[in-house]
Amino acid sequence: MKQIVALAGGVGAARFLDGLARIVKPQRLFIISNTADDAELHGLHVSPDLDTVTYTLAGLAHPAHGWGLAGDSFQCLQALGRLGAETWFQLGDRDLATHIYRTERLRQGVPLSRITAETCSALGVRAKVVPMSDDPVRTRVRTPRGEIDFQTWFVRRRAHDRVLSVRFAGAAQARPAPGVLDAIRSAAAIIICPSNPIISIGPILAVPGIREALRSTAAAVAAISPLVGGRALKGPAARMMKSMGLRASASQVAELYRDFVNVFVLDRRDANLVPEVTAMGMRTLVANTIMSDLHAKKALARAVVEAL
Amino acid sequence: MKQIVALAGGVGAARFLDGLARIVKPQRLFIISNTADDAELHGLHVSPDLDTVTYTLAGLAHPAHGWGLAGDSFQCLQALGRLGAETWFQLGDRDLATHIYRTERLRQGVPLSRITAETCSALGVRAKVVPMSDDPVRTRVRTPRGEIDFQTWFVRRRAHDRVLSVRFAGAAQARPAPGVLDAIRSAAAIIICPSNPIISIGPILAVPGIREALRSTAAAVAAISPLVGGRALKGPAARMMKSMGLRASASQVAELYRDFVNVFVLDRRDANLVPEVTAMGMRTLVANTIMSDLHAKKALARAVVEAL
Repeated sequence: MKQIVALAGGVGAARFLDGLARIVKPQRLFIISNTADDAELHGLHVSPDLDTVTYTLAGLAHPAHGWGLAGDSFQCLQALGRLGAETWFQLGDRDLATHIYRTERLRQGVPLSRITAETCSALGVRAKVVPMSDDPVRTRVRTPRGEIDFQTWFVRRRAHDRVLSVRFAGAAQARPAPGVLDAIRSAAAIIICPSNPIISIGPILAVPGIREALRSTAAAVAAISPLVGGRALKGPAARMMKSMGLRASASQVAELYRDFVNVFVLDRRDANLVPEVTAMGMRTLVANTIMSDLHAKKALARAVVEAL
Repeated sequence: MKQIVALAGGVGAARFLDGLARIVKPQRLFIISNTADDAELHGLHVSPDLDTVTYTLAGLAHPAHGWGLAGDSFQCLQALGRLGAETWFQLGDRDLATHIYRTERLRQGVPLSRITAETCSALGVRAKVVPMSDDPVRTRVRTPRGEIDFQTWFVRRRAHDRVLSVRFAGAAQARPAPGVLDAIRSAAAIIICPSNPIISIGPILAVPGIREALRSTAAAVAAISPLVGGRALKGPAARMMKSMGLRASASQVAELYRDFVNVFVLDRRDANLVPEVTAMGMRTLVANTIMSDLHAKKALARAVVEAL
């Protein structure tokens, strides 16, 4: 049974994958997760996108936030604050266990991909969730105030600063995690989740070999636009794209992916962009991409899988 | 105002110090804490004795256990267990903040004594709590099953294995923490808390220079027996002493300290041991050493301070 490979950022991707894992056997899913927004907080290695996908597929994600664990408490963070530590990054007590475990295993020399497999197995996730690389890649955001790391820009400063450019420090030296290139080459189908093309999918594509594998694979590649009507369903994609001199539109996302995507999935409200995307040589699928409930998630996943 | 210096282990010492800090100005107290039972758990640096003393003086200690924080929850530890990590060492959510904070600061190269000062200040502890050394010293317990580290012997294996001997790995190379020797030399009085003489006070005395400073200081040195009627009020002292070929009695404790103690404090039930201790050249103080409530803690502290 051939695999379905997905490239995934955080909350938006997790929502889509939640639907996908319910309409295909989750064991068939090979999910390549962005790790460029990983951060060290309180000396702990935090992997927000990886954990959002894992927690969601485990059925443990916080239903309203999308990130973190449902019903988690924040006793430890509060106590850290009392000790004078910074508390702008929300870390729940049970969530912290993941970071403590990961940090200890990393210090023991275990690669992140193996640690992720352990965590998934412990939490009952049957899909394969794989970091894009076991090597550290970190998104750095250039703003008018200077270059800052991604979580400082996104969480601490609430995406307030204008983004002039981003770079993925370490990407040039990073190797795809074990199995990533093979999975892309031998996939039944590949899906680029509805994630920020700059800072969620961008870093995955920046790992040497991954974009090339996507270009040359025999599998059809679909991408779901994270922008609907020129706005991001979640997160700062639209504003970020504009401040970087790009258009905030689904067709701009299509353009960023045109060298490897075969099927581009647009929301119904963006049906007017079909000719523009078709002109780039891609097939289009127009669907309801707003995953307001489980039914909508599954319907979108089904439509995408059928189009492939 | 000259300082009162105390050498302290964990729960027993903390109880006594709680009383002492209420009858003298806490700012006068200079507490030298055992760190040889420190352990790395989940990659975090845990300092049980240091924290027990700090939490107690901050009024935050768990009233029944003596260790840990009152009202703490264990969400993170439970989640660590789910990930397959070992959970035999109880670490509460708020308690974990201390270990996370300490571990990060240590990795930044900050000495343990400075981190402890930061923690004490954040938690409102006015006494000076100082680790015996900023260098790592670790108690290793030789048992019929081989040598194991202290927390494995004490917590994981519930002090089940017979103790043939103990050693304090790293002690020979350790330097007393900044201020420790000066505090002993210039103290108004020195008190050896009612702690296990082998594994709580023993490691402090094993740090080169400390025992010598106690011998040569002009200050009077008192020691309170942790054994009453041949039993330890708390912990495995009596059984450990017996299995190491020592007598489990207050006079045996006195003998271990005879080269530097001037006043030995015995419980009323051990009044019969007075001649034996006096014969070693020490003065004795017979008092109620069972600190069943705050009144008893203060009464004992007052009696000891007056005897000095």
